[in-house]
Amino acid sequence: MSDPKIGIIMGSQSDWATMKEAADLLDTLGLPYEKRIVSAHRTPDRLWDYGKTAVARGLQVIIAGAGGAAHLPGMMASKTRVPVIGVPVQTRALSGVDSLYSIVQMPRGFPVATMAIGAAGAANAALMAAGILALQDDALADRLDAWRAALSDSIPQEPTDD
Amino acid sequence: MSDPKIGIIMGSQSDWATMKEAADLLDTLGLPYEKRIVSAHRTPDRLWDYGKTAVARGLQVIIAGAGGAAHLPGMMASKTRVPVIGVPVQTRALSGVDSLYSIVQMPRGFPVATMAIGAAGAANAALMAAGILALQDDALADRLDAWRAALSDSIPQEPTDD
Amino acid sequence: MSDPKIGIIMGSQSDWATMKEAADLLDTLGLPYEKRIVSAHRTPDRLWDYGKTAVARGLQVIIAGAGGAAHLPGMMASKTRVPVIGVPVQTRALSGVDSLYSIVQMPRGFPVATMAIGAAGAANAALMAAGILALQDDALADRLDAWRAALSDSIPQEPTDD
Amino acid sequence: MSDPKIGIIMGSQSDWATMKEAADLLDTLGLPYEKRIVSAHRTPDRLWDYGKTAVARGLQVIIAGAGGAAHLPGMMASKTRVPVIGVPVQTRALSGVDSLYSIVQMPRGFPVATMAIGAAGAANAALMAAGILALQDDALADRLDAWRAALSDSIPQEPTDD
Amino acid sequence: MSDPKIGIIMGSQSDWATMKEAADLLDTLGLPYEKRIVSAHRTPDRLWDYGKTAVARGLQVIIAGAGGAAHLPGMMASKTRVPVIGVPVQTRALSGVDSLYSIVQMPRGFPVATMAIGAAGAANAALMAAGILALQDDALADRLDAWRAALSDSIPQEPTDD
Amino acid sequence: MSDPKIGIIMGSQSDWATMKEAADLLDTLGLPYEKRIVSAHRTPDRLWDYGKTAVARGLQVIIAGAGGAAHLPGMMASKTRVPVIGVPVQTRALSGVDSLYSIVQMPRGFPVATMAIGAAGAANAALMAAGILALQDDALADRLDAWRAALSDSIPQEPTDD
Amino acid sequence: MSDPKIGIIMGSQSDWATMKEAADLLDTLGLPYEKRIVSAHRTPDRLWDYGKTAVARGLQVIIAGAGGAAHLPGMMASKTRVPVIGVPVQTRALSGVDSLYSIVQMPRGFPVATMAIGAAGAANAALMAAGILALQDDALADRLDAWRAALSDSIPQEPTDD
Amino acid sequence: MSDPKIGIIMGSQSDWATMKEAADLLDTLGLPYEKRIVSAHRTPDRLWDYGKTAVARGLQVIIAGAGGAAHLPGMMASKTRVPVIGVPVQTRALSGVDSLYSIVQMPRGFPVATMAIGAAGAANAALMAAGILALQDDALADRLDAWRAALSDSIPQEPTDD
Repeated sequence: MSDPKIGIIMGSQSDWATMKEAADLLDTLGLPYEKRIVSAHRTPDRLWDYGKTAVARGLQVIIAGAGGAAHLPGMMASKTRVPVIGVPVQTRALSGVDSLYSIVQMPRGFPVATMAIGAAGAANAALMAAGILALQDDALADRLDAWRAALSDSIPQEPTDD
Repeated sequence: MSDPKIGIIMGSQSDWATMKEAADLLDTLGLPYEKRIVSAHRTPDRLWDYGKTAVARGLQVIIAGAGGAAHLPGMMASKTRVPVIGVPVQTRALSGVDSLYSIVQMPRGFPVATMAIGAAGAANAALMAAGILALQDDALADRLDAWRAALSDSIPQEPTDD
Repeated sequence: MSDPKIGIIMGSQSDWATMKEAADLLDTLGLPYEKRIVSAHRTPDRLWDYGKTAVARGLQVIIAGAGGAAHLPGMMASKTRVPVIGVPVQTRALSGVDSLYSIVQMPRGFPVATMAIGAAGAANAALMAAGILALQDDALADRLDAWRAALSDSIPQEPTDD
Repeated sequence: MSDPKIGIIMGSQSDWATMKEAADLLDTLGLPYEKRIVSAHRTPDRLWDYGKTAVARGLQVIIAGAGGAAHLPGMMASKTRVPVIGVPVQTRALSGVDSLYSIVQMPRGFPVATMAIGAAGAANAALMAAGILALQDDALADRLDAWRAALSDSIPQEPTDD
Repeated sequence: MSDPKIGIIMGSQSDWATMKEAADLLDTLGLPYEKRIVSAHRTPDRLWDYGKTAVARGLQVIIAGAGGAAHLPGMMASKTRVPVIGVPVQTRALSGVDSLYSIVQMPRGFPVATMAIGAAGAANAALMAAGILALQDDALADRLDAWRAALSDSIPQEPTDD
Repeated sequence: MSDPKIGIIMGSQSDWATMKEAADLLDTLGLPYEKRIVSAHRTPDRLWDYGKTAVARGLQVIIAGAGGAAHLPGMMASKTRVPVIGVPVQTRALSGVDSLYSIVQMPRGFPVATMAIGAAGAANAALMAAGILALQDDALADRLDAWRAALSDSIPQEPTDD
Repeated sequence: MSDPKIGIIMGSQSDWATMKEAADLLDTLGLPYEKRIVSAHRTPDRLWDYGKTAVARGLQVIIAGAGGAAHLPGMMASKTRVPVIGVPVQTRALSGVDSLYSIVQMPRGFPVATMAIGAAGAANAALMAAGILALQDDALADRLDAWRAALSDSIPQEPTDD
Repeated sequence: MSDPKIGIIMGSQSDWATMKEAADLLDTLGLPYEKRIVSAHRTPDRLWDYGKTAVARGLQVIIAGAGGAAHLPGMMASKTRVPVIGVPVQTRALSGVDSLYSIVQMPRGFPVATMAIGAAGAANAALMAAGILALQDDALADRLDAWRAALSDSIPQEPTDD
């Protein structure tokens, strides 16, 4: 079996509650992935190695979630040209505005494809990864189209009381 | 000559001052692109048509810049599975925080790969587009690696007074 | 029986908890309405159709609630000259500031009559709709005046402990 | 000649630079209006009188612009059921966020149809007023449709360098 | 018995939970007060009357609490030269930042002595009122000094676990 | 000639551009004052002495302006029961939001009567001081009433182009 | 036994829940400390004495936590050249943004080494204190290196479901 | 001549305008330093090397300035136990709030001693560095005390018009 083309990385175990949304949606779309804890601050060498070997290992998209002074997505983007999708994890004091600013405000040279704060952002990271890979994979493109169509079809005409 | 794989769209002529940074960097990287004004509010049908025909026309990445209540990137993402990269244009009263929130806070289902506010974000949109296309284009991957290496090499060891 | 002049639309079922405040107040004022889920991103064609047919169907006010990157009110305003009243739904991470900015910061050409974040805004959307329709309906004007007078009369002179 | 149906009021002479955008657009649409300085704090009795006589004087829309602790739109909404459209004027220290919050966050009972901060909001207030009056005036509806169509038609396909 | 020199007013019954802190502290300091619900929007005429008669009725300080688009303190300050102390009540979506901006950002001419958001602000409004009245009342000055000294004396040297 | 009852203090010479608005308005109202630079951080002992002697020196109101981490108003309030009016000076990076929060968010026990950010706040500090002193000074009350009436009378009925 | 080189001070007993994180981590690192409640506003003389005697008493680092208009860290920095580390305590209305701005935005002359809002910031204050003291204490440097290495080693390769 | 104990690093040449304030103040205090451009994203290996060799090279304080998604201070703190002082550089769109959040909101384990946004913060970084080194250097302590005393002595009693 081939290596996964998608890596989901996160700054700590506590981010998994959010990032699991990405993993679940990749499962739904039939896309294999690896998941790793790569802390920019606590395991910087792990970050270095991950970034340096990403191309050689065949990774095509890296989904990186982090909260607070969230340096993981941007630092990963500085270590590899593989597209990095950033997910700002919601935080207690600043609700994830700190995470968002730390991820999205990257300087010229090192883009991070930033998603919404929290669970919706994690799910969308999976969809963005699928959209990127679908450019080379017609079957995946069909699955993604079908997922999108099913989402649209699931919307009822009228709201209902619970 | 083949059609460009990258579309740069923007909400108004006034966004071009920002979005030209994306175009210039694509020129540097040797990547053809088309550029269009597609206003979500003033030309919604143009948006519809652009989104509906994007796959058939061979577009592989759409870079969308807009300011204020910036609906263009998200609406485009709802019309096509082609990856959409959003650039929040800086605004007068709210400095682009309105643009950023309108672009990045997309609901589950429709990701927009959001960049930094303003010119740095536009340049990074070009680099993200290049990173995505490089997954299928080894020559582009080499050019992107070279561009990144040159950027790193250009940094002097010490700051200097002007 | 004639068609309702007021349409309440919302981006998702989850917005109904907020938008029901508008519906309840319209009931109190004796104003018929229709209610629909119209997602800017998940059902863009439904949005298109709703906007394009609004005038012909006799709609005179559209109340649109949405949260996060809330594009529904503004996109509806781009599709019809029927007055659109926007209700920013409160969100988890950003408390509805994202919704507010996405709705209120519309560019020149396409106004959205924006209300307060959350339930108070939804109730006020109903009152604004009533105020607009009362311009052509003296009986409604009387009912609205009476509702306002009753609200004022209900305020006690002194606060009381629970 | 009949009395105007639209009143443009503002908290001070300094707001006129912004509110003139509303007046100019009403001129374009052929809609007569009166313009007044009505300061919530400096001329509260003028505010009272304006609100109390609005219905009797035949006003059908009031456009109210103010900055900072901007109480004029909301206080006017408490004095009359005539629809009030609020325009947050940009301020020096807080860029109009103070104006916006003071206008939009009205409690249940007294809606203010809030527009964007600054000049775009003032122009949109005129368009919202036109949209409301067009419900009873087919010729105005045609002029508004034409204005909107002309705006859309004015958008070029491609951006141009200056 | 003489009329109270302090009036506590608030926009609604729901503000009493906050404003009771002011009342309790005035009780502690032995300062009589009246308490009234005076809604800027729902009972504007009550606001007018209260302001117009404040001097004649012997009021020397008005403590005004309100939330959201909090117009009560500023409007009261426009109706009377009696010093007005404003208390921004915490709100659900914006945590009282809307209340704070609506109260503190008054234009030149009409000051509101703004306190902290919420309960601490309400208590401090009572202390500010006491400080103002103490300028003419030596016995009150002594009581205020004593209250302050007792507060300082109550602070232990070291924190303790619960 | 008697000592002034009003002290204007500020954290640095650079604050004078703002605080001069307070001095000018006190001049207009015929109220003597002293003005001092009292830096909470650079001259803490001066702050201590000023606070400790305020009552004995006959001060009845202290107007304190400061910017950034603006500790002067609150520290002065902790040293004297003389009412302290705080003026948040506008700052370069944070526009005075830092000043505002540092001044207004005082804990229970030590109120600071906070004014608007910048020049309007400084002028209003003078008016608040006048309002407090007018409680014991009928002639001042008349002058303050006259000033307020003149301000109201100065407002024209209509805005004019420049 | 020698006097501790580290003082942990806080504005009130309620800050202890946060500041205990600093104490616990100092315990882990084997660093003695004293802990005191020193309220800038309620016990300003205690603050004065603490600052004035800090050098003589052998203190080498002061960790100061406070919330809201948090003046303690900055005022302490004005009284002593001993390095002051500031911890912004999370607050109810403003989530600690008020604390953060009041602590970090110090004017030229009086630095406060500001940490993150809340518990993480308190723990990091202990680590910063250890890093400072380790410059003169090789054994402590080794313990700090070991703590850091253990933290890194504790991070698993993959996240796990609970 | 011995190696400097202080390193000033910054993310780009453009940060030097801000960071020069730190250098100038170190010059004033007679403290040698080195200055380097170390970009977290453009020269990550330079960052790695700088951090890994900091202790061995005898660095005792690292002053790190960066703007936007400012990862340099935090990443340096993850690579060395040498105390890192962070200076948030002011940015165009977000005024340095992005820089501040990216620097100050570090997770447990890796403190950055964060200073004020901009030039005042850079100068204070130098003073904090001096305060830390003064713990082991009595002559420096005397110079720092003298600098602080001179700053206090320079404050005039009264403000003056320009």
